[in-house]
Amino acid sequence: MRQAGRYLPEYRKAREGVPFLEMCRRVEKAVEVSLQPLRLVGVEAVILFSDIFVPVTGMGVDLDFAPGPVIATPIRSLEQVTALRVPDPRESVPYVMEILGALRRELASERVPLLGFAGAPFTLAAYLVEGRGSKDFATLKRMMYRAPDVLRALLARLTEMTIGYLNAQIDAGAQVVQLFDTWAGLLSPADYRTWVSPIHREIARRVTRSKAPLVLYVNDGAHVLDEMIASGADVLSLDWRVDIADAARRAGSRASLQGNLDPCALAAPPARIRELVAEIAAAAAPARGHVLNLGHGVLPETPVEGVRAFVDAAKALPVRSV
Amino acid sequence: MRQAGRYLPEYRKAREGVPFLEMCRRVEKAVEVSLQPLRLVGVEAVILFSDIFVPVTGMGVDLDFAPGPVIATPIRSLEQVTALRVPDPRESVPYVMEILGALRRELASERVPLLGFAGAPFTLAAYLVEGRGSKDFATLKRMMYRAPDVLRALLARLTEMTIGYLNAQIDAGAQVVQLFDTWAGLLSPADYRTWVSPIHREIARRVTRSKAPLVLYVNDGAHVLDEMIASGADVLSLDWRVDIADAARRAGSRASLQGNLDPCALAAPPARIRELVAEIAAAAAPARGHVLNLGHGVLPETPVEGVRAFVDAAKALPVRSV
Repeated sequence: MRQAGRYLPEYRKAREGVPFLEMCRRVEKAVEVSLQPLRLVGVEAVILFSDIFVPVTGMGVDLDFAPGPVIATPIRSLEQVTALRVPDPRESVPYVMEILGALRRELASERVPLLGFAGAPFTLAAYLVEGRGSKDFATLKRMMYRAPDVLRALLARLTEMTIGYLNAQIDAGAQVVQLFDTWAGLLSPADYRTWVSPIHREIARRVTRSKAPLVLYVNDGAHVLDEMIASGADVLSLDWRVDIADAARRAGSRASLQGNLDPCALAAPPARIRELVAEIAAAAAPARGHVLNLGHGVLPETPVEGVRAFVDAAKALPVRSV
Repeated sequence: MRQAGRYLPEYRKAREGVPFLEMCRRVEKAVEVSLQPLRLVGVEAVILFSDIFVPVTGMGVDLDFAPGPVIATPIRSLEQVTALRVPDPRESVPYVMEILGALRRELASERVPLLGFAGAPFTLAAYLVEGRGSKDFATLKRMMYRAPDVLRALLARLTEMTIGYLNAQIDAGAQVVQLFDTWAGLLSPADYRTWVSPIHREIARRVTRSKAPLVLYVNDGAHVLDEMIASGADVLSLDWRVDIADAARRAGSRASLQGNLDPCALAAPPARIRELVAEIAAAAAPARGHVLNLGHGVLPETPVEGVRAFVDAAKALPVRSV
């Protein structure tokens, strides 16, 4: 998850003087930084370099990164929602499909899977309504309570966009797709059931999972784990706050698990990282399948040697199906 | 929880031109704003107006609010830890005890309990090490992994301070004391068991709970609820992400519950707030006892009419013991 990034000096060099959205649009650059974690630290999968807001630019939303997404005109009315286009992503963001195609060709001779991804509608809506990142997304929640119709309409449009976008990625070469719901964990279990679960289920139903398994990540979602399990996603990506042994028991044969080392633990000495990886692998052993991963993205200040120790420890584990 | 505050125009007026720490030190001002929620919205308990960092100023730490706490020299070494004093809070922060005494006299003729509070050692340490608020407290976690002895020593000192401080508040008139562990929820269950649970248990053992029940709040703590239940605290204050019916089942006769409406829900129309309060009360009915409350502090942008609707709905419920 977020493998490419500021912890790699080579990434910082490739980014120099290139604005973030521009990086996502320039096929050659994006391919280069997508492959860096494979070439430099030896990870066992390659993730499309992009951002969850890339397809939103194709809907007619004016946004920028500073460094998080900033929406020029936050969406607060039904008029603004109905003005949003749901374009064919092959036309609105063709470069994403080109990057995926180029990566697939690049990886043709290697047994390394290619992952695509999208932001989940609730998380996209959170930013679109709030206008930028927030600690509590109070504006979004106010809309939940005072203008639920507007939020419902916005989520419906984003859901259509997301399904088309993930299927286009699969057509373009993604062999696994991940759905990131970074902010859905801010909701109470009841609000999550109302506002988030039906969308995850619809996405799981309409994404071509026969061609590419769907991974669902909800940040800070320990309290909605049963809802995640019921979503229909093939793999549940867990943050470090979830007890993965407990998750394996609850998921049973319904889903595989991914995760879930605290990204901050990569600051530990390599020997300790190996211990922690072994602990997670043992705890996840009863799961239907397990993809060893961090519980969130790699932090910028992470020592590269910590990432390498993690990857090496993961590779030393016996291979399991997922 | 955080009853007084920026949502009240009368609070903003009382604060005008007075720096935050100064507000906490001026007995008359602090008494005035402590009583505002009782007088203006009719809450059924009064909470000391102060901040979790007030007693830390007595340890020899130079800090300010901008608006969150900012530590002039973040604590990163054993030398800095051993330089921290653990003073008698009646001498280092006498005004806190004076405020409590004045509030008790003020409330003598009313059947309104007076609540004191303290920040929990882990949360205080989080700021002291990091230097200020943070999304992931990566510096603190790096210390967990790379200099555990320094963190252990810091936590031990903060634990001594906190126990003395809570007992001094009880002596000064607090009839209930709350322990706020705002950042402990950032930890994995395993790290929480190592770094947080033993401290909560020690505090529960050494605070004079026969005179004042202890309320424990862990923000974003759904994943460590069983640890909270085992802490020995009399009441567990839950944020809105916890399913309170599930918490009541798990706590059984071991603890009462407090909470847990999403503070953002106070933006809802009053009729909806009444429904939500009724839902929480019904869900918490099997608990040993239940204090109706929000799941976190009142947000600055909250409409006062929303707070009033919440308080009125709470008062309309049948009284239960806790």
